[in-house]
Amino acid sequence: MHLAKRGHRVSGIDNMWRRKSVESHGSTSAIPILDMDDRLLEFKKIHNKHVSFYRGDLLDYRFLSDVVGQTCPDSIVHLAEVASAPFSMKDREHAIYTQNNNIEGTLNVLYAMKEIAPEAHLVKLGTMGEYGTPNSDIPEGFFELKCDGKIDILPFPRQPGSIYHLSKVHDSANIHFACRVWDLRSTDIMQGVVYGTRTSEMTDDSLMTRFDFDETFGTVINRYCAEAVIGHPLTPYGKGGQKRGFIDIIDSIQCLTIAVENPADRGEYRVFNQLDEVYGITELAEYVVSAGKMLGLNVKIEPVENPRIEKEEHDYNVAHEHLKNLGFKPTRRILETLEIMLTDLMKHKDRIIQKREAIYPKTKWGREMVSPKGIMSR
Amino acid sequence: MHLAKRGHRVSGIDNMWRRKSVESHGSTSAIPILDMDDRLLEFKKIHNKHVSFYRGDLLDYRFLSDVVGQTCPDSIVHLAEVASAPFSMKDREHAIYTQNNNIEGTLNVLYAMKEIAPEAHLVKLGTMGEYGTPNSDIPEGFFELKCDGKIDILPFPRQPGSIYHLSKVHDSANIHFACRVWDLRSTDIMQGVVYGTRTSEMTDDSLMTRFDFDETFGTVINRYCAEAVIGHPLTPYGKGGQKRGFIDIIDSIQCLTIAVENPADRGEYRVFNQLDEVYGITELAEYVVSAGKMLGLNVKIEPVENPRIEKEEHDYNVAHEHLKNLGFKPTRRILETLEIMLTDLMKHKDRIIQKREAIYPKTKWGREMVSPKGIMSR
Repeated sequence: MHLAKRGHRVSGIDNMWRRKSVESHGSTSAIPILDMDDRLLEFKKIHNKHVSFYRGDLLDYRFLSDVVGQTCPDSIVHLAEVASAPFSMKDREHAIYTQNNNIEGTLNVLYAMKEIAPEAHLVKLGTMGEYGTPNSDIPEGFFELKCDGKIDILPFPRQPGSIYHLSKVHDSANIHFACRVWDLRSTDIMQGVVYGTRTSEMTDDSLMTRFDFDETFGTVINRYCAEAVIGHPLTPYGKGGQKRGFIDIIDSIQCLTIAVENPADRGEYRVFNQLDEVYGITELAEYVVSAGKMLGLNVKIEPVENPRIEKEEHDYNVAHEHLKNLGFKPTRRILETLEIMLTDLMKHKDRIIQKREAIYPKTKWGREMVSPKGIMSR
Repeated sequence: MHLAKRGHRVSGIDNMWRRKSVESHGSTSAIPILDMDDRLLEFKKIHNKHVSFYRGDLLDYRFLSDVVGQTCPDSIVHLAEVASAPFSMKDREHAIYTQNNNIEGTLNVLYAMKEIAPEAHLVKLGTMGEYGTPNSDIPEGFFELKCDGKIDILPFPRQPGSIYHLSKVHDSANIHFACRVWDLRSTDIMQGVVYGTRTSEMTDDSLMTRFDFDETFGTVINRYCAEAVIGHPLTPYGKGGQKRGFIDIIDSIQCLTIAVENPADRGEYRVFNQLDEVYGITELAEYVVSAGKMLGLNVKIEPVENPRIEKEEHDYNVAHEHLKNLGFKPTRRILETLEIMLTDLMKHKDRIIQKREAIYPKTKWGREMVSPKGIMSR
């Protein structure tokens, strides 16, 4: 919607997997959302802009290459992946589904570009989680290695914390290769956790985007906000010293627009760390408590056992200069946005209460034993 | 065979994919090989040792987990991947087949270990090609990063040169994760190019291993040797300054045995650079010329256009101390082994002549344009 309003010709592809998957995991979007056709009609009615839509799957190469051939894109913004760490950690089937889907979908995009749109610029949504939490500052994708008089600029090592995050690391390596060897161009976005319920274009309920709050698809900030509006204590995992980068959805859209409008050069693979602020997850809970107080909510914090295996206390110094150098100016402060989020969610409190069981963590990272006997007697 | 002779209880899994794939690419093994059942019977007859064999696919998890449950392995030596850069670069289908097969097979092995054999030691065959050719010395998997008073030991960046090599990089990241998070143990072998026609146990024609010389599955050294025996000039790709690590098949078996008999600790992920010597590929051709001369062959060198996109002149300093520290002693010099290889191959000269067309490079790394029109009119 943002790009269309800026005058770009925009086409979308989606297989609507997220909608189905959230329902099948016993949850739903807290904020009701329209079918895509209706949403696009409303967008046309309200903002007088047309967006084309193709319903289909990136794993269907015939479909994908037809769309790329028909639309002749200057940019391909690729957000079409299974995007959930807990989903990928449920069991072997979910792990393999996540990696196959994400890797194959991205390879198909790269081949479609190579074969049909070699000038196009791929803006690919990665994640800050690709880096993990090294005992080191985190640069923007690359670092300089000096050794015995030799110097090289090398990809900064990735040590991600889930099978899902690994799939994005694999994508990054594949995309980097495609730029080196096929002379494609790409911006790989290491995005922090996005928060917020609405972009500037969402001026009507009919244009709202989804808001997941379940343990599988809800981010930490979404789960906190859902808990706050139903009167449940906020549940940081473990010690709560896990630090992550965060960015408001409006600023995320601003950044993606900057990437699209300032493409990489042919053969260039560049990495943008797309985040605004860094918070520990207990610190974040405290912000939600403060925002709740302003709305008259009495919010408590009650940490739960951490289902994940991750560092619970660590430094987190992340370079994020590339987008600023291209003109990115953060427009929101978290407290202000949290108030808007809680206000939006209070209207749908009943929907959250109905699916409240979906908030609590069930997916564990650790090894659960199955006895060899159990397996052999199948 | 080597492990069985040393007293280990050995079981093998194979889906026999390589045999079928080489035939379907219009080539064959220069050295005839028996069916697996016959080979194991001959091994039993000649060396009086039994090896169990399970015919099946790592992508069939039921099959894999049954075998792991039945055999209760101390070590799993995983060599079961599509192992060809040109195969993976033929087109989109081959690329996706390679990555899906290798990643999913290895994930299945990791899940089988996690669920049934968490104490087992995974010895995984990676490749020196995972590192690519950085302008830097190459350490054994990890390097120390010091910055602003902080120190961390991080995985050394990988910049591989093909979709196949990328699949092994993805495996390495997945295995490293499984060791960190599930407390598994693994040795990831960055192996150089293996050369040679026979191990110490191959004392009879019935025990010989395959020898591929086609552009898809034949390594540079195998292609040279095949060319030498049929009187064709050796065909280095491009300038010939591409340097790679090499290791004799007997020493490769020695190294894998060392890894198996000196397992990693629980939770440990270690990387061994498994190579003996480094040669440029023209330098290697000159060794084949010399070995040929000793056998009365008049061998010429005629470089061909490089079908790959790779550095053709570069430094290549690779650390490889871990195996030496565990007792590895290289036993062969390349000239000696090349003489044995050429002698073995001369017996099967006719088989190579029959499939000589398979030697010449056909698979190109670069981008080949297909017009959007061509795609859209399908």
